[in-house]
Amino acid sequence: MSVLVVGSVALDTITTPFGKAKDILGGSATFSAVSASVFTPVDLVAVVGRDFPKKYINLLKNKGIDLTGLKKEKGKTFRWEGEYGWDFSNPKTIATDLNVFGKFDPIIPKAYRKNKIVFLANIDPEIQEKVLNQVDKPKIVACDTMNYWIETKRNQLLKLLKRVDICLVNEAEAKELVGETNLVKAGKKILKLGPPIVIIKKGEHGVLMFSQKHIFATPAYLLESVYDPTGAGDTFAGGFIGYLAKVKKYNQKSLREAVVYGSIMATFAVEDFSLRKLQKITAVDVRRRLNKFKKLTNF
Amino acid sequence: MSVLVVGSVALDTITTPFGKAKDILGGSATFSAVSASVFTPVDLVAVVGRDFPKKYINLLKNKGIDLTGLKKEKGKTFRWEGEYGWDFSNPKTIATDLNVFGKFDPIIPKAYRKNKIVFLANIDPEIQEKVLNQVDKPKIVACDTMNYWIETKRNQLLKLLKRVDICLVNEAEAKELVGETNLVKAGKKILKLGPPIVIIKKGEHGVLMFSQKHIFATPAYLLESVYDPTGAGDTFAGGFIGYLAKVKKYNQKSLREAVVYGSIMATFAVEDFSLRKLQKITAVDVRRRLNKFKKLTNF
Repeated sequence: MSVLVVGSVALDTITTPFGKAKDILGGSATFSAVSASVFTPVDLVAVVGRDFPKKYINLLKNKGIDLTGLKKEKGKTFRWEGEYGWDFSNPKTIATDLNVFGKFDPIIPKAYRKNKIVFLANIDPEIQEKVLNQVDKPKIVACDTMNYWIETKRNQLLKLLKRVDICLVNEAEAKELVGETNLVKAGKKILKLGPPIVIIKKGEHGVLMFSQKHIFATPAYLLESVYDPTGAGDTFAGGFIGYLAKVKKYNQKSLREAVVYGSIMATFAVEDFSLRKLQKITAVDVRRRLNKFKKLTNF
Repeated sequence: MSVLVVGSVALDTITTPFGKAKDILGGSATFSAVSASVFTPVDLVAVVGRDFPKKYINLLKNKGIDLTGLKKEKGKTFRWEGEYGWDFSNPKTIATDLNVFGKFDPIIPKAYRKNKIVFLANIDPEIQEKVLNQVDKPKIVACDTMNYWIETKRNQLLKLLKRVDICLVNEAEAKELVGETNLVKAGKKILKLGPPIVIIKKGEHGVLMFSQKHIFATPAYLLESVYDPTGAGDTFAGGFIGYLAKVKKYNQKSLREAVVYGSIMATFAVEDFSLRKLQKITAVDVRRRLNKFKKLTNF
């Protein structure tokens, strides 16, 4: 079963304590799509400018990602520049140039509209809703968001949350969204906003997943060298949704497994700049790390 | 199998966003001993002043804790005053009055010296070593410490670490002890200081346990209402060591189980001020929460 991924494709300039990289491939849809592609075919909807390097197009193509929905517009590709300190938590944004992404008005190709699984990666919630309006009865709709939308488009985001099955947020976003410092209370409050499943990503501290009947908690796979955390959350989401598409089951068991697979995919993303490592990951690598993860957490 | 617990017994004055409590029972040995007592008999070595309330003596007696080693000295009991903000991480110390604890020079009662399991709760590492010098060939020695000793008695602490089997620290202490921001690297570096087992307590984010061959990661049991985190780490250690004493096995499996039991004990400690809740906990309560924990983490 294929998945539809809609979000941003960007060129990032990133500084970490280990070095700086300029105009490298980034964007919420990029990480999500490449991560999901390890499990299942992916239909991508996004926009880039005329300056978008051919090598990055090839990278996506090589992952088997369908690019019918990747529009090339006149102008420059969306650019983000950020800097991380030693703690690798929240990056400092140095510059954001929306460029062609500022006018992103996604038209979902006809062949994509029948996708049963839709992932609305982090973009303006109004655009996320426009996408939803174009797809035929999807079975699972998941969305991500960020503090910027929580602060500037709260009402539009709340409207969207009533229409999705799964809401993915990080720890700070969860707390901000419902004004609650306790994460368990925050997760439960977000459930009340609409989505039957709420996933809170805690980075190196793992993931929590909430539903009416269950809570699931898992630690993260442990890494000795985090190189660049950009895209970790998007990669998690891609692995999560990709796994659900692969197993074609949607229950507590498959959701928990999907969280673990998503977590493992995210670890590959942070071990190098951009998608340098993630793009090379195969099902065999994932299986190997899953086995290590089981040994790490089993009691 | 009984355990020997040596540390502080204190009267705490604690302010949290939920309220303030004055001269309530606290201290590293108190929380550890009461927590361990749910699993196994406990021999306690500590010192209090003449002002130490009879009701607290009775509380410890009612838990079956042997108080032969609890000395009552002329003077006042050790007092600590602290304040927590909403995030419940590091408390602000308002006042520390060592009182009789300032001259604590523990004499281990003869009947205690044959204990095979010794827990050196958080006190001056020189005193911890003096205790070690008085016990006959213990099988398992575990120690806790804190940032204050890492900063002011580093050499004494490093000397102690060469003699213990298990070192327990929290996240910030682990990083400070070896000057390393990555927790996996920090855990491995602490192993190199001597202890074959290193446990890093991450509070609401769970626990990591390191040994030469294995790493174990577990999330924390989730709580909606944290009332007062004082003593959580000590309670963890008590449950951990108490469980090892109960099962009389010392291998990777029993150590992992002990970590989970310790985590569960800690959750009871933080749900009310002081030991108000913890003192009432029975093996049945622990078993019930363990089952919930398994449901929470199983995938």
